Amino acid sequence: MIKVGIIGATGYAGNELVRLLIGHKEAEVKWLGSKSYVDKPYSSVYQNMFKLVDDACKDDNLPMLADEVDVIFTATPQGYLGGILTEEILSKAKVIDLSADYRIKDVATYEAWYGITHASPQFIEEAVYGLCEINRDKVKKARLVANPGCYPTCSFLSVYPLVKEGIIDPNTIIIDAKSGTSGAGRGAKVDNLFCEVNESIKAYGVATHRHTPEIEEQISYAAGKKVMINFTPHLVPMNRGILVTAYATMIKKLGYDEIKSIYDKYYNDEFFVRVLNMDVCPQTKWVEGSNFVDVNFKVDERTGRVIMMGALDNVVKGAAGQAIQNMNLMFGLPETTGLEAAPMFP
Amino acid sequence: MIKVGIIGATGYAGNELVRLLIGHKEAEVKWLGSKSYVDKPYSSVYQNMFKLVDDACKDDNLPMLADEVDVIFTATPQGYLGGILTEEILSKAKVIDLSADYRIKDVATYEAWYGITHASPQFIEEAVYGLCEINRDKVKKARLVANPGCYPTCSFLSVYPLVKEGIIDPNTIIIDAKSGTSGAGRGAKVDNLFCEVNESIKAYGVATHRHTPEIEEQISYAAGKKVMINFTPHLVPMNRGILVTAYATMIKKLGYDEIKSIYDKYYNDEFFVRVLNMDVCPQTKWVEGSNFVDVNFKVDERTGRVIMMGALDNVVKGAAGQAIQNMNLMFGLPETTGLEAAPMFP
Amino acid sequence: MIKVGIIGATGYAGNELVRLLIGHKEAEVKWLGSKSYVDKPYSSVYQNMFKLVDDACKDDNLPMLADEVDVIFTATPQGYLGGILTEEILSKAKVIDLSADYRIKDVATYEAWYGITHASPQFIEEAVYGLCEINRDKVKKARLVANPGCYPTCSFLSVYPLVKEGIIDPNTIIIDAKSGTSGAGRGAKVDNLFCEVNESIKAYGVATHRHTPEIEEQISYAAGKKVMINFTPHLVPMNRGILVTAYATMIKKLGYDEIKSIYDKYYNDEFFVRVLNMDVCPQTKWVEGSNFVDVNFKVDERTGRVIMMGALDNVVKGAAGQAIQNMNLMFGLPETTGLEAAPMFP
Amino acid sequence: MIKVGIIGATGYAGNELVRLLIGHKEAEVKWLGSKSYVDKPYSSVYQNMFKLVDDACKDDNLPMLADEVDVIFTATPQGYLGGILTEEILSKAKVIDLSADYRIKDVATYEAWYGITHASPQFIEEAVYGLCEINRDKVKKARLVANPGCYPTCSFLSVYPLVKEGIIDPNTIIIDAKSGTSGAGRGAKVDNLFCEVNESIKAYGVATHRHTPEIEEQISYAAGKKVMINFTPHLVPMNRGILVTAYATMIKKLGYDEIKSIYDKYYNDEFFVRVLNMDVCPQTKWVEGSNFVDVNFKVDERTGRVIMMGALDNVVKGAAGQAIQNMNLMFGLPETTGLEAAPMFP
Repeated sequence: MIKVGIIGATGYAGNELVRLLIGHKEAEVKWLGSKSYVDKPYSSVYQNMFKLVDDACKDDNLPMLADEVDVIFTATPQGYLGGILTEEILSKAKVIDLSADYRIKDVATYEAWYGITHASPQFIEEAVYGLCEINRDKVKKARLVANPGCYPTCSFLSVYPLVKEGIIDPNTIIIDAKSGTSGAGRGAKVDNLFCEVNESIKAYGVATHRHTPEIEEQISYAAGKKVMINFTPHLVPMNRGILVTAYATMIKKLGYDEIKSIYDKYYNDEFFVRVLNMDVCPQTKWVEGSNFVDVNFKVDERTGRVIMMGALDNVVKGAAGQAIQNMNLMFGLPETTGLEAAPMFP
Repeated sequence: MIKVGIIGATGYAGNELVRLLIGHKEAEVKWLGSKSYVDKPYSSVYQNMFKLVDDACKDDNLPMLADEVDVIFTATPQGYLGGILTEEILSKAKVIDLSADYRIKDVATYEAWYGITHASPQFIEEAVYGLCEINRDKVKKARLVANPGCYPTCSFLSVYPLVKEGIIDPNTIIIDAKSGTSGAGRGAKVDNLFCEVNESIKAYGVATHRHTPEIEEQISYAAGKKVMINFTPHLVPMNRGILVTAYATMIKKLGYDEIKSIYDKYYNDEFFVRVLNMDVCPQTKWVEGSNFVDVNFKVDERTGRVIMMGALDNVVKGAAGQAIQNMNLMFGLPETTGLEAAPMFP
Repeated sequence: MIKVGIIGATGYAGNELVRLLIGHKEAEVKWLGSKSYVDKPYSSVYQNMFKLVDDACKDDNLPMLADEVDVIFTATPQGYLGGILTEEILSKAKVIDLSADYRIKDVATYEAWYGITHASPQFIEEAVYGLCEINRDKVKKARLVANPGCYPTCSFLSVYPLVKEGIIDPNTIIIDAKSGTSGAGRGAKVDNLFCEVNESIKAYGVATHRHTPEIEEQISYAAGKKVMINFTPHLVPMNRGILVTAYATMIKKLGYDEIKSIYDKYYNDEFFVRVLNMDVCPQTKWVEGSNFVDVNFKVDERTGRVIMMGALDNVVKGAAGQAIQNMNLMFGLPETTGLEAAPMFP
Repeated sequence: MIKVGIIGATGYAGNELVRLLIGHKEAEVKWLGSKSYVDKPYSSVYQNMFKLVDDACKDDNLPMLADEVDVIFTATPQGYLGGILTEEILSKAKVIDLSADYRIKDVATYEAWYGITHASPQFIEEAVYGLCEINRDKVKKARLVANPGCYPTCSFLSVYPLVKEGIIDPNTIIIDAKSGTSGAGRGAKVDNLFCEVNESIKAYGVATHRHTPEIEEQISYAAGKKVMINFTPHLVPMNRGILVTAYATMIKKLGYDEIKSIYDKYYNDEFFVRVLNMDVCPQTKWVEGSNFVDVNFKVDERTGRVIMMGALDNVVKGAAGQAIQNMNLMFGLPETTGLEAAPMFP
């Protein structure tokens, strides 16, 4: 059994790690770290875990934790792990970081977009960007995985095949993303109250959202050159789910069949990426609770653009599920272990 | 492996059977019956099953199905199974009926509330009311199980210990129930459109809902006498979940500790019934996607009444999950097989 | 033009007062008091008012305000008005209090349920309970109106005719109420976050909710004797609306027509109370944004009980709308002035 | 008093016309036409109108109606008005058509996108596209107004100033739109059931939605040349509201202040268009129930694009409200008559 510690277990992503690991036959949670709820029974913070989790929350003590477990998930605010990670910790336990601290290779870019001075840039190079479908082999050997952001996972997997194959001009990519409210976290803010979110939709972080450079970096690798895009997130009155609608101008004017075969080439062997049938648009509901990403596309011959779409559950494939997928790879388990659940509908 | 056939596989309960059985290691679905979608790929009717279920829907042919499978789930309209069930079918395959056809022992009561002439009353006596927590031993030996209704399951489990122990006057029971909209089914009706249900709440079927006699029958067994109650269902703008708030006058004036010990006596060994801690009110969200029923109570010393509360997921413990719990019992499997998933939050 | 001041203008009820008064041709808002947002433009706190309200928020200064306006609405926490109200203020301006400070005549009861020592009990006797349909004449002459609570308004108007006429035993009344989330206010609390409320329903304040004694007092007046009831509120995932489902045992066994004629007797001349047609259950959506209360009932001959139902918009008839209805009466205006808007659907 | 007839009064737009006209002091509804509900009381189809509208629904008889009223609103399916409009009708009553029949000047384009042969193309030239902010003077003299679509109104007003002034390259415009579900109408379809829409978001009609040519035509007029764009609508789990997020490449690299002054130039005198303050993103909730359109923009210096945003209530400014705004202009009334209501929040 893999012994697991979670730092930040009382956020939504932390609770989802607990939920998924309860169903994971090769892992067990040994440490539920939470700055805000130390000594409180975990199931009093998340009543869904009543009778399923008996432990109380513990302090967010990373060095002590590294002695006791095989892998540590950090579902913590930006800058937290960067501020305390050491070689000693990494020599004792593998670390999967759900924050952005090690996602961006260029430390200046990280510091500019996040407004944080990176306290441990020496680990950035080693950290593997844990988008399993792209970096599977590197993840298997990693000590430190930077678990991708929810928006970047959905955005990148939606456009990746056509960028990689040079079908679209990557600098024309516009990503219009829509997210459920769990992405905003469990902090008590007026903006996230039921009555403020319900029955409304808005854009936020327009031209300034921190996931922009993360998406750009990954697209740049695929394109083989530096790329700048537009990324606009929106808040949708639902709990879970991210939908990405991406637009780009085609360099090569291809038809449906040709583009479909490109998507199939990249994703046919990927269990968690489902290329939908012609004209079926991804819906967040169809992947709810699962680790799937549904993608599809539409060619607009009139304008010469292709519209690429993707949907995932932000708390699963966009956070906890992908983190466990990374853990499976790091520990030599079948990649789907504990992630086999079918999406729940309705 | 238990071979499973589903009649009515394209309703919400049918799709939930498919979802749960995909995760059930001892059973596999062999027949997806659907009157409306014959020959259509199941995953085109429920896109959550894309790449997970390859089969097309088949005809609702019960006799043919009985030759091919070990157990048949009928998630069909009232009167359907009653109209076609035969001794020959029951001699070949076990049947778990999610409709109300065999729930009510008194055929006249069934016919009066449902407005249907029962076509096969000869099987009513044999049918076991599949509330596992109450009729576990009978279910184990049953050929035909009448899977309880969603409201009756939640209502009865909420009040059962205090009725059974004679603490409350059963004829004073008033059950005010609230359900998510999946309980209304997938039929295209104006009343169930998003814009009609969203941002609203209403009572329906006041004093006339068909689950009333089913609840009364079970309460009467527990009380040892004929009981009449009030039951009022409400439609709530959410997908899943039933909450029951039940009121009754106490015959014996007991305090919190005494009543808590009664609930514990009945449910301490029941995995799927969770008696919450003092003053924690059940919420439907905390059981979503799971087979749990959360119950609790509050003594009102001022009025001499006790308020009993229960919450479950109407599609799981209120339908498909309980049906699988019954199947597990009928086939000698651990009762929780395939039903271990923790509730999903948020 | 009536000059209006609002204390607590940045709560949901305060904003609704502003919305309704913008459409009121005989009144204009002169003072937008807000403890939290002093000097901030009101329209930056409530963007719906952009370009409609130019003023900034002012301090919550009641004595100064009394010099400048004709009527003061206090949409403030319990105990606030009680702590600062003076004869001098009342001699200068009429006061309509949306808090509970002057609703309950028995100060000991108020103090027991609210856990507050009442600082100005000398005004309780004078204060008129502003349920216009019941106390219209007293309201017309009042200096100080205690605007009824949202739940009490809906609960009492639903049961009033049958209590007043002695048809039901008032001590058997059980009120199961369901409210939209705006009733919880705009304070930043985890429990009211979108993801905590959405897709869920729960009871709260069971047997302890502060609106209980307020409802009991009014029912007691109607019954001519002291009455105790059960009242259980529930939180529903919608913005606005309260639905009440009330149960009581009939003393006299009457049929539909007789009871209908009793409701008509009390409400036929009431513009804001609509007695629905037979078997039409009130829905909160049908009154949204308006000052209407929709009521109806169902006789259950089996159990000898009558089920009474009522629906209103908690922010309008349950708060700001009723407050303006009171203002209209106090200033000799037609009662419906500024409240004529039809409910909005969907 | 203007005598008003409504054909298609039992759709959501029809009901909103009734709601708004109840509050319109210069108009009264004389005819509630409905193909599906002839002779049924209107208030039994829309219970919000109980006691407010006493009339029953009448046949959809346009010629007879033209004799009895001053203006006819047709809130009918595409092709309906086109099939029955005559010179005689237009000589008797003004017509405001909420369908698309007369919105597109090029009949071939209409027929290609709608798949309908236009039965009365002779009126297309005369019909005025009723976007009041653009065509105010023409509307005043019109007999036949083509009321703009919900998406086109929001899309066009969001981008208009920058197109008109030549700041952006119109052929780079990409419009990503999000709509509440009322836009899908009141027809009973599985896709619009609560459980199918709730907790999900999806694109639909990608590259094929019929509002595309309507938007393109209006942008082409503003640009002074033929323009092609991408338009993608999405279905959002809320009742009302459209949000548009539009992207375009700037021809002239302008900063915030310069672009703000352009928006102000076009909209400063427009009551119903609110240009929000810097960095305030439009939200559909802030315009709910009102005739306002909130617009704003963000310059992205990195990519050289400008992101333009707009929000409106699809049932008001996107349908019934704009139709009444047109009626006001056609009858010489102040443009805001009956449309003064402040947005409702929450």
